Amino acid sequence: MTLKIGVIGTGAIGKDHIRRIRRNLTGARIVAVTDVNAEQAHGVVQGEGIEARVYDTGLDLINAPEVDAIIVASWGPTHEEFVLAAIAAGKPVLCEKPLAVTAEGCRRIVDAEIAAGRSLVQVGFMRRYDRSYRQLKKVLTDGAIGAPLTLNCAHRAPEAPGFSGDMALTDSCVHEYDVLRWLLDDDYVSAQVIMPRSCHLGEQEGYQDPHVILLRTRQGVHISIESFVNCQYGYDIQCHVTGEKGIASLPEPASVHLRLEAKSSDGILVDWKDRFVDAFDVEFQEWINATARGEMDGPSAWDGYVVALTADACVKAKYSGLIEPISLPECPAFYGR
Amino acid sequence: MTLKIGVIGTGAIGKDHIRRIRRNLTGARIVAVTDVNAEQAHGVVQGEGIEARVYDTGLDLINAPEVDAIIVASWGPTHEEFVLAAIAAGKPVLCEKPLAVTAEGCRRIVDAEIAAGRSLVQVGFMRRYDRSYRQLKKVLTDGAIGAPLTLNCAHRAPEAPGFSGDMALTDSCVHEYDVLRWLLDDDYVSAQVIMPRSCHLGEQEGYQDPHVILLRTRQGVHISIESFVNCQYGYDIQCHVTGEKGIASLPEPASVHLRLEAKSSDGILVDWKDRFVDAFDVEFQEWINATARGEMDGPSAWDGYVVALTADACVKAKYSGLIEPISLPECPAFYGR
Amino acid sequence: MTLKIGVIGTGAIGKDHIRRIRRNLTGARIVAVTDVNAEQAHGVVQGEGIEARVYDTGLDLINAPEVDAIIVASWGPTHEEFVLAAIAAGKPVLCEKPLAVTAEGCRRIVDAEIAAGRSLVQVGFMRRYDRSYRQLKKVLTDGAIGAPLTLNCAHRAPEAPGFSGDMALTDSCVHEYDVLRWLLDDDYVSAQVIMPRSCHLGEQEGYQDPHVILLRTRQGVHISIESFVNCQYGYDIQCHVTGEKGIASLPEPASVHLRLEAKSSDGILVDWKDRFVDAFDVEFQEWINATARGEMDGPSAWDGYVVALTADACVKAKYSGLIEPISLPECPAFYGR
Amino acid sequence: MTLKIGVIGTGAIGKDHIRRIRRNLTGARIVAVTDVNAEQAHGVVQGEGIEARVYDTGLDLINAPEVDAIIVASWGPTHEEFVLAAIAAGKPVLCEKPLAVTAEGCRRIVDAEIAAGRSLVQVGFMRRYDRSYRQLKKVLTDGAIGAPLTLNCAHRAPEAPGFSGDMALTDSCVHEYDVLRWLLDDDYVSAQVIMPRSCHLGEQEGYQDPHVILLRTRQGVHISIESFVNCQYGYDIQCHVTGEKGIASLPEPASVHLRLEAKSSDGILVDWKDRFVDAFDVEFQEWINATARGEMDGPSAWDGYVVALTADACVKAKYSGLIEPISLPECPAFYGR
Repeated sequence: MTLKIGVIGTGAIGKDHIRRIRRNLTGARIVAVTDVNAEQAHGVVQGEGIEARVYDTGLDLINAPEVDAIIVASWGPTHEEFVLAAIAAGKPVLCEKPLAVTAEGCRRIVDAEIAAGRSLVQVGFMRRYDRSYRQLKKVLTDGAIGAPLTLNCAHRAPEAPGFSGDMALTDSCVHEYDVLRWLLDDDYVSAQVIMPRSCHLGEQEGYQDPHVILLRTRQGVHISIESFVNCQYGYDIQCHVTGEKGIASLPEPASVHLRLEAKSSDGILVDWKDRFVDAFDVEFQEWINATARGEMDGPSAWDGYVVALTADACVKAKYSGLIEPISLPECPAFYGR
Repeated sequence: MTLKIGVIGTGAIGKDHIRRIRRNLTGARIVAVTDVNAEQAHGVVQGEGIEARVYDTGLDLINAPEVDAIIVASWGPTHEEFVLAAIAAGKPVLCEKPLAVTAEGCRRIVDAEIAAGRSLVQVGFMRRYDRSYRQLKKVLTDGAIGAPLTLNCAHRAPEAPGFSGDMALTDSCVHEYDVLRWLLDDDYVSAQVIMPRSCHLGEQEGYQDPHVILLRTRQGVHISIESFVNCQYGYDIQCHVTGEKGIASLPEPASVHLRLEAKSSDGILVDWKDRFVDAFDVEFQEWINATARGEMDGPSAWDGYVVALTADACVKAKYSGLIEPISLPECPAFYGR
Repeated sequence: MTLKIGVIGTGAIGKDHIRRIRRNLTGARIVAVTDVNAEQAHGVVQGEGIEARVYDTGLDLINAPEVDAIIVASWGPTHEEFVLAAIAAGKPVLCEKPLAVTAEGCRRIVDAEIAAGRSLVQVGFMRRYDRSYRQLKKVLTDGAIGAPLTLNCAHRAPEAPGFSGDMALTDSCVHEYDVLRWLLDDDYVSAQVIMPRSCHLGEQEGYQDPHVILLRTRQGVHISIESFVNCQYGYDIQCHVTGEKGIASLPEPASVHLRLEAKSSDGILVDWKDRFVDAFDVEFQEWINATARGEMDGPSAWDGYVVALTADACVKAKYSGLIEPISLPECPAFYGR
Repeated sequence: MTLKIGVIGTGAIGKDHIRRIRRNLTGARIVAVTDVNAEQAHGVVQGEGIEARVYDTGLDLINAPEVDAIIVASWGPTHEEFVLAAIAAGKPVLCEKPLAVTAEGCRRIVDAEIAAGRSLVQVGFMRRYDRSYRQLKKVLTDGAIGAPLTLNCAHRAPEAPGFSGDMALTDSCVHEYDVLRWLLDDDYVSAQVIMPRSCHLGEQEGYQDPHVILLRTRQGVHISIESFVNCQYGYDIQCHVTGEKGIASLPEPASVHLRLEAKSSDGILVDWKDRFVDAFDVEFQEWINATARGEMDGPSAWDGYVVALTADACVKAKYSGLIEPISLPECPAFYGR
């Protein structure tokens, strides 16, 4: 049985997903696409050589009878509408982050899904599908280092041409907010943001960088995330967990070790796409498999909502300079772990 | 278009391939199986829930009209017959190593394939599909370390309950013979085998271990392979290339780095299956894709023949204590690189 | 010319220094010792086979005519008196930490030294003499990673039988306070202390561990120090500096790399004495050399005072939960860098 | 008690030793020097500010009454004469390698020392004093990896302007011959030399490089040494020991770890002097200490002789292409371990 998928948004990310479903994955087929730029949507269909109908609007696509499940990869502000429509249509939907551009929007989706009485919404937090994070979670779950006490994380990119304002807190670090909760099986209770001396390299004049984000969990775990998006040297995701009896660190991507020019070195990736390309494959394959079974086992609308609340608290903390509480509502039984 | 595959041999390896084609790969379907143990063949079909006919013999399966391509995963001594039959039937065949149990047998396959006038045979040397070897080959090809001069390789396994006699030279190291030729794009001219002091651990009483195999290539590259199959500590494949201006080393499988019990450590695999599980997926997906295009781009019958000649020279060298020449016939234009 | 040294305190540390001066160092001789336990002082003199007079009191020793310079390695609360006496006697003195048990005591020493008009006091902050910290400082000074922005440090010990209360802040981390100022050539402006979930291993019932100390410097550098003295796995000093274009990390002690029991590992030290044993040699040799030249180039009384003020701010921050300012007086010209 | 030392040869190496004895070591004083270039000898005395008499000849210096012990750091061909003269004078002598330029010359020294009935001669094989080799020896002796079976070693230098002919075998690798015997507490029984494809980089036109030297020990340990003196990338000494249950590798010099320019790297030394500078200090301090006690515990004349025989066998093997036996005479009881 083949899952028939409709894709909303055929920009860089949507196109990537279409390509991976066609070439790398099994059990699914793209049958419908749409984009605000209809010409581009047609181009992708032709370029990839798929037999998919191009719809005028996302809503048309969602309600098309041949569409079993939907991928939302359009512009962020459109996500909420499409996800709500998918819920209304009773169709599974995988929505790229953000689930909605406000926490309130996320909450509306949560409420709609609960009202629909069926798990339909998955958020595109692909790090949970990354082999290295899964290896790290296994080590923690196995108890190899005892209970986690502190986490030292970094999210670094060589440069960030489009970054401004609080995007570090609201855009790139949402992946950390999600994956660290999942890693620890815990929730945040407070946030603090420290602005160290700013990097003067890179093209982003006036962009204050790095940010140091401190989170505390219910269990008392102290998390530090250095978000540094003009770090020049590479795309580098770090996560070091101090446990009661040892330290466990996120594996780095394997590379050819060189002894060259007075250096013994491993390569560091530069392009973020290379870092999580395999994770995207796993994410979509598992989503296809679960959807085909009538299940949903990925990051939920609730997870998307919690991430949005966390981002809001971080922005508030950045400007207040204080430790801001993160008051999560109790997790509805519907999303019970 | 889906490639319809028949699998000869449903033991551990054949079963693994059936499972991977069904669950992980795209573009192919298992339509026929056979095994000397018919009951087991039926069990695999049921266990995996595939719609495949169970044939009485390999020859029946090869000639079945619904079978487009064949995988040979039966007992080594049967390989030559099945591969020759596949050539006779004009069907693509992926044969697990060995291609044949003697160099002469491999030669007969080479001659038959040339006579058939069409590339049909691929040998199951999966290391060429391993990401780490491909990364290493790219570094060499890019010239990052200059021309290769020496290689230091190791093939180590924690224990080898079934090993005896010269199996290190004829069985496990065939993967090194193949992948190093491919890595260097070169051929061997001589072999020497040194037997160091033997390990006394492990259960293999009387088994002489390790072997040190020295190969020299046409370009003068010196290769040392330590085959050590009772090394206790792990399954560990090493390849360090000294080039004119630097050293490049095969990446090791990524693992969670631990600081624990007075050690800063990375994990070493223990089970060989974990080491190349991804390579098998890539090998079969690429074979399926190439076969669907009417092409054949993997290790050829010629490669299988060269490996068999190399193994013969190593066995001779082990007992003579001398540097034995490896006299390869000229590569037929049919297999021209 | 041989510097004639008197040592106050012949416990574990004093004895070590006597031994190192006699066996490893050049240009100095121990001519006088004293200890509250006179018997022990005699024992050390005999055990080491040195010709040194045993004095009844520290003050007697300081004023003995044959003593050129003094090492204070007695109980902390006695340091201030002995350092002040050495200043009064016009003799160079190397005082183990703490310089005094209160910041006010340190200030009195600073004032006395300024009044004496001559640099006489060095504080035993040996990390500045550690090869790894010196290598790291050179990398920073050379500008290899650009301006430093954040530091991630850890001070971990396997267990801390005698630790209680705020000793992490007032006792063990004083080495971090000193060495990081020196490393960055900067001063602190504020401190914050976070108490994560506490480790339940180790024998120290009720001891809250780890502490996370956050410091901010004048230049805006953000420093995080994890002090974890029951970490079980080893004695582990970490310092990672994020600069504008790269990361530099404190070298770890070299050890034999092992591939053993499914682990590829380097050793981590367990005993803190092994970590800085070479640094002590360098510290004392350089102090002897400088003293012989009539100079003083190590950590000064001012450095000791600043560290004491920093420790006070950390303790205050631990209990207030706030970011506490560190208001350093202007550095007197006498100590001008 | 201070050991009064005379130094023969005040070129680069002799001058270094004078400097280290004066500045870094304890228990000795340079009281006499000589050099074929008398002016240079005077210059060193003045430059270092030592009170040492400049003698016309090595023999004069050896026989000078104020000289307790001798360091021979002159041109290789003069070593034998000076060492024999020191034996005749009954004075301890530390001779830089080579002990003599022929094995016969070494043998004459051995015979003379036995005849003198007193251990007087130490050869300047400083690697035995290197901390990393000592750490590795301790791991082997402790049995951590079981009995050693094979060794993979490399001696690489960025370039070797003065190298020609067989100097790799007779000059630079003598350190490997010595230190590996010592490491394994074993002796060699045969040698083979393989000449791989030669490096074409570097200035040494016509110099064939690298050499691969294979040695076998009495215990059957297989040793491979890659001597590559135009390797461009650094000065790199490697030693990996495969034991029955694990691998132990020589520690590399500690360096600041960098994440910079898409590389995660440790530094590799370039200048050989930086690699063993500490080992020289330890070597001379231990020699001074042992000599002061009337003992001799370093590499002996016998060790120098064995190394010379090994080098001869390697040269023979290079030209014969065969496995050449190394027939060591039985070690005289005088040098009994």
